[in-house]
Amino acid sequence: MNAQLMQVVAESFPASRKVYHGGTLHPDIQVPMREIDLHPAAGEAPVTVYDSSGPYTDPAVRIDIEQGLPRLRAAWISARADVEAYPGRAVQLADNGLSGGGKPAPEFPQRRPPLRARGDAAVTQLAYARAGIITPEMEFVAIRENIGRAAGAGGARDGESWGASIPEFVTPEFVRAEVAAGRAIIPANINHPEAEPMIIGRNFLVKINANIGNSAVTSSTAEEVDKMVWAIRWGADTVMDLSTGRNIHNIREWIVRNSPVPIGTVPIYQALEKVGGVAEDLTWEVFRDTLIEQAEQGVDYFTIHAGVRLAYIPLTVNRVTGIVSRGGSIMAKWCLAHHRESFLYEHFEDICRICRAYDVSFSLGDGLRPGSIADANDAAQFAELETLGELTRIAWRHGCQVMIEGPGHVAMHKIKANMDKQLASCGEAPFYTLGPLTTDIAPGYDHITSAIGAAMIGWFGTAMLCYVTPKEHLGLPDRNDVKTGVITYKIAAHAADLAKGHPGAQARDDALSRARFDFRWQDQFNLSLDPDTAVAFHDATLPKEGHKVAHFCSMCGPKFCSMRISHEVRAEARNQGMEEMSAKFRAGGAEIYVPAPALKSRAG
Amino acid sequence: MNAQLMQVVAESFPASRKVYHGGTLHPDIQVPMREIDLHPAAGEAPVTVYDSSGPYTDPAVRIDIEQGLPRLRAAWISARADVEAYPGRAVQLADNGLSGGGKPAPEFPQRRPPLRARGDAAVTQLAYARAGIITPEMEFVAIRENIGRAAGAGGARDGESWGASIPEFVTPEFVRAEVAAGRAIIPANINHPEAEPMIIGRNFLVKINANIGNSAVTSSTAEEVDKMVWAIRWGADTVMDLSTGRNIHNIREWIVRNSPVPIGTVPIYQALEKVGGVAEDLTWEVFRDTLIEQAEQGVDYFTIHAGVRLAYIPLTVNRVTGIVSRGGSIMAKWCLAHHRESFLYEHFEDICRICRAYDVSFSLGDGLRPGSIADANDAAQFAELETLGELTRIAWRHGCQVMIEGPGHVAMHKIKANMDKQLASCGEAPFYTLGPLTTDIAPGYDHITSAIGAAMIGWFGTAMLCYVTPKEHLGLPDRNDVKTGVITYKIAAHAADLAKGHPGAQARDDALSRARFDFRWQDQFNLSLDPDTAVAFHDATLPKEGHKVAHFCSMCGPKFCSMRISHEVRAEARNQGMEEMSAKFRAGGAEIYVPAPALKSRAG
Repeated sequence: MNAQLMQVVAESFPASRKVYHGGTLHPDIQVPMREIDLHPAAGEAPVTVYDSSGPYTDPAVRIDIEQGLPRLRAAWISARADVEAYPGRAVQLADNGLSGGGKPAPEFPQRRPPLRARGDAAVTQLAYARAGIITPEMEFVAIRENIGRAAGAGGARDGESWGASIPEFVTPEFVRAEVAAGRAIIPANINHPEAEPMIIGRNFLVKINANIGNSAVTSSTAEEVDKMVWAIRWGADTVMDLSTGRNIHNIREWIVRNSPVPIGTVPIYQALEKVGGVAEDLTWEVFRDTLIEQAEQGVDYFTIHAGVRLAYIPLTVNRVTGIVSRGGSIMAKWCLAHHRESFLYEHFEDICRICRAYDVSFSLGDGLRPGSIADANDAAQFAELETLGELTRIAWRHGCQVMIEGPGHVAMHKIKANMDKQLASCGEAPFYTLGPLTTDIAPGYDHITSAIGAAMIGWFGTAMLCYVTPKEHLGLPDRNDVKTGVITYKIAAHAADLAKGHPGAQARDDALSRARFDFRWQDQFNLSLDPDTAVAFHDATLPKEGHKVAHFCSMCGPKFCSMRISHEVRAEARNQGMEEMSAKFRAGGAEIYVPAPALKSRAG
Repeated sequence: MNAQLMQVVAESFPASRKVYHGGTLHPDIQVPMREIDLHPAAGEAPVTVYDSSGPYTDPAVRIDIEQGLPRLRAAWISARADVEAYPGRAVQLADNGLSGGGKPAPEFPQRRPPLRARGDAAVTQLAYARAGIITPEMEFVAIRENIGRAAGAGGARDGESWGASIPEFVTPEFVRAEVAAGRAIIPANINHPEAEPMIIGRNFLVKINANIGNSAVTSSTAEEVDKMVWAIRWGADTVMDLSTGRNIHNIREWIVRNSPVPIGTVPIYQALEKVGGVAEDLTWEVFRDTLIEQAEQGVDYFTIHAGVRLAYIPLTVNRVTGIVSRGGSIMAKWCLAHHRESFLYEHFEDICRICRAYDVSFSLGDGLRPGSIADANDAAQFAELETLGELTRIAWRHGCQVMIEGPGHVAMHKIKANMDKQLASCGEAPFYTLGPLTTDIAPGYDHITSAIGAAMIGWFGTAMLCYVTPKEHLGLPDRNDVKTGVITYKIAAHAADLAKGHPGAQARDDALSRARFDFRWQDQFNLSLDPDTAVAFHDATLPKEGHKVAHFCSMCGPKFCSMRISHEVRAEARNQGMEEMSAKFRAGGAEIYVPAPALKSRAG
C-alpha cells in the first residue's frame, strides 16, 4: 500500500485539547471530548464540546491507517460472554465486483475472525436494555450527552420540545430506558469495536450523518477513507458508505477499521453489483449473503427498503419524479418484473435474525420518499411509512434496534406532518431524515435548501439528519463539499438542539457571543464550528495580526463599531447609575413605556 | 472616469429572454419578466420568472453607467402634477467626508435638479392609494406579482399563510387597497425614476435586500456599483447602500442613477461622518440636512432608529452583546452623553414631513435588536418594538409609507413570537428582518444560520428579508459573498412563498423537477437560481457534453440511476395496467394497505 495514498488529516483543533471522562459504573470507559481554551482575559473556564472526530485529533494517539484504530469496545463485548469468533465467510471476487476481472483495490492488511452471537442470543443494545443491563456503551453515551450540561446547570431552561422528554441530566439509566423503549438506538455492531458509542434518539442531541462512497464513475479507496476522517473531523456522527462501483468490499474494510463513528450501508447496492446490475436478477440468497458479509465486517446499520411493497408501486406512477430512492427503484423494478411481493418484505424476519446476531441496527429505508416538492406527503410515501411501522414492531420483537428514514423534498408547511405521522406510525422509533429540501429551484445550493428543512424537522423531533452537499443532484461530492455539507448540518442540528431546549446547548453560543462582544477575535474563531474559515474570512479584509486584537472590525471600521460604542454606552450607563434603573425597570415590568415628551413641531 | 473601472456584468441568462408586459389602466407601463425556454422535447411553455435584474439583462438596452438607466417613471411622476423641480442643496465637501482634504471619488457626470412636493402635498404612494388612485406603480407591481399565477391557475392551492390574505390573482385595486391600509409599501422616491416598481408586503411575494457599501477600511465606487448590479442580477429586490467611509455622496449618486431597484440607506451613518465620527456631536440640523441630501438623490427608504429611546438604554446594560445595531449604538451614545431623549424620536414628525415630500419610505430601525441568541426577545427589544408601532401610526398620519426592521439573532422557537408581536404592535406594517440567525456558533456560515430563520419568519409573514453573507461578523463581503448571500436569501424567500401557498410559486419547482426526471440537464441548469454553478458542479464530475444528455448522472452511474429505473418501472407499470390500479387505489383511499402474505420463516 502506498502510504502517500492513505494520508488523512490528523491534527487537533486550535486552542483545543482532547480530554477523556471515565465512567462510574464502568470505570474503564474513556469518553472523548474537546476542551477549547479561552484567552486569559476572558476569565472563563474552557468550553467543552462534543467531539466525533475520534483519535485523529488526539496528538497522543499514533494514527496508522494500515493498523486501524484501537478496539476500545473489544473487552466490553467479550465480557458479555454471548459471542463467539468463527472463520467467517470467504471473500469472493464478486464482493469487489471483480468476477469478470479487473484491478482489485488493496486489501486491509489483517483480517480478524468475525464475531457472532452464540446460538440464538440477541446481542443487541436493545436486548441488554430490556434485560435491565446498563452496558458500557450506555454509560459512555450518557457521559457524552451531558457535555455542556454541567456548565449550563441552573440556567433557565428554554425551548419548545414538541413533546420530547429531554432530561436536565442524562443518566445511564435514562439511556437504558430509552433504548429499551425503542426511542433511541446505539448503533454498535460487535464487529466494529473501534467505534466510540453514540446514541440516536429524540430525547438526545440531534445527530448528523455524512454519506461517502465511490461510484461506478469515479473515486478511490484512499479518497473515501480520507473523506470519512474529514467528515468526522467537522462533526459527522455517523458515516454511510454508499459505494456502488468496484471494490466495495475492500473499501468498506478500510473505512470500518479506521472509523470511530458507526458506519451505515445500503446492502442492496452491493447485492445489485453481484448480479451484474440487473435488478430482476436479485435474489434473497444473494442479498442474505451480502448482509452477512457486511455484518461480519462491522457495518453498524443497514438501510433496508422493505417497505416498498408491490401494491404501492402504482401509487408512484403519476408522480412528477417517480421513485428517486435508488434502493426503492431497484426493489420496485424487481417487484414488477416478477410481479410479486418484495423479497425484503417477505424475508424481513430472516433479516432480523441476522441483525440480532451482530447488533446491526435497522435503518428502514423510505424507498418511496418524494423527490420533489410536488410529490411530498403523497399516498405512496405515507403508505410506505405505515409499513415501516409494521416492520419496526417485527424488528423489535426480534430484539433489533430500529430507526426510520424520512424525506426528501418537502415544503415547510408540510414538514411537521411528516414528524407527527412518523411518531404515530412507528412507535417513536428514531426518525432519520434526508434534509428535507424546502424548494427544488436551487441545484448547487441544496445543502442550504435542505438545511432549512433539516433544522425544522430536527426541532420537531428528528433524531438524526442526513447531510446534503452542494453537489446534490449534480455530481459526486469532493472533500470541500463533504466539509460544507457537514458544517451546514451541524448548524441545522445545533439550531434544533437550541430550539428544543437541550440544557447546556446554548453554552457554546454564549461563550462565542461574549468573545465577540469583548473583541476576543481568536476566541471567536476557536469556538466556531470552522475556525479555519473564520480566520480566513477575517484575514481577507484585515490580514494583519494586530487586527486580531483590534476593538473594531472591517465591517464598520473603528468609528462605527457598534460593539465598541456599546461598551462605552455600558460604561456610561453604569456611571449614571443606570444599572440600578435597569433593575427597577425589569422589576416594574409594564413600566418600561415611560411617558414621551410631547413631540415637537417642525424644527429648523 | 475610467470606463474600465465602471464595468458591470450586462448579459442575459442562458435560454432566457427578457419580455415586458403592458398595463391596462396604464398602457405605457412595461413590466419586465424573464422567460426561460425549455428543450423542445419537454413540450412545455417557457417558464416565466420574476426578474429584478433591470435592463442589464436586456440585450436590447445599451448600458452606459455614466448615463444612468432610462427614467421609466419620470413621465408618471410629472403627470401627477404635484411636484416641482428646484435647484437642490449644494454638494459640500463634508458630504463626501473631504472637509479635511483627501481625494474625491469621481462625480456622476450630470446632475439634474431634484423634485419635491409642491407646497405641503404628500406625494407618496400611500397618499394616492388613500385617495383611491391606482398609480402606474401600483398596476406595475400587480402585473409583476402575478408572474406564474396564470401558469398555475386552477391548480390546487396549498400552504399555510398564518393569517395572510394572499389572493388568487393580484389586481391593481388589491395593490392599492394594501398600500392604503399600510400593509404594503412601494418604495419609490420621486427622484429615483430609474427604479422599476416593486412591493413589500405580507400578501405579496417575499422580497430580499442585499447590503453593499464601502467602509472606512476598504473598497471603491466602481466596486460598489458593480456589487449593486451583481446583487440584482441574482435576485436582490432592493439594495441598501451602507457606505461609511469617504465619498459616500458620490458613490451613492452612481448607485442610484444606475439602480433599477429601490435603494435604502441609514442616514445616520453619513451624518456621523459629517461630525467627524463623534456620536455626541450629532445634531438634528446635521441629520436633517443629510435626509434632504439623500432624498434629493433619490434614496427610496431610510432606516431611522427613532425607537432607541433614552429610557430603554438601561435595559441593554446586562445583555451578553449589548447594542449591536450601529445606528442603535450611535443613538444610545448620543442619548447618554446628553442625557436626553433621542433627537430622532423628538423630531420624528419633522422627519415625516421630509419623507412625504419625496416619498421616501420609512424603514423603522431596530436599534436594540438582539446580537446573540442569549439576548433574543428581551425587554429592550420588545420595548423598542412598541415604540416603532407608535411611530408607525405617526408616520401614517403624515401619509408616509412604513416598514419595520426586525432581528437579528433568534433561536427557532422564539421566531414566531417576533412576527406575532410585530403584527400586533405595528398595525400590520410590513416586517423587514435581518435573518434571523438561529445559532451563534458558525461565523463564516451565517448566511446559512440565518437562512433557516429567514425562511421561517418569511413563512410566518415577514415581507422582506435582509440578506446575510458568509462574511458576516468577520469581514466585508466581496462579489462572491454578495452572490452567495443573494442566492441563499432567494432560497429562503421562495421556500417561504411555497409554504405560504402563493399561487404559481411552485411552477418553477415543478418545471425543474420534471426536467430532472426527464434527464433534461440543460433545462435543469437553466431553471435553477444559479445556472453557472449548476453547470460547473455537474461538469466537475462529468465534463463531457455527451453527459448532459445522459440518462444517468455521476452520483449513481448508469446501473444505479433511480430515475432511469423509475422510468422503466413506470413503463412496466403501465404495461401491467397499474395506472388503472393506481386510480382505483386513490379512489379507494384507505384500501392502500392490502393484506400482506404471511411472513415466511427463515429461508436459506
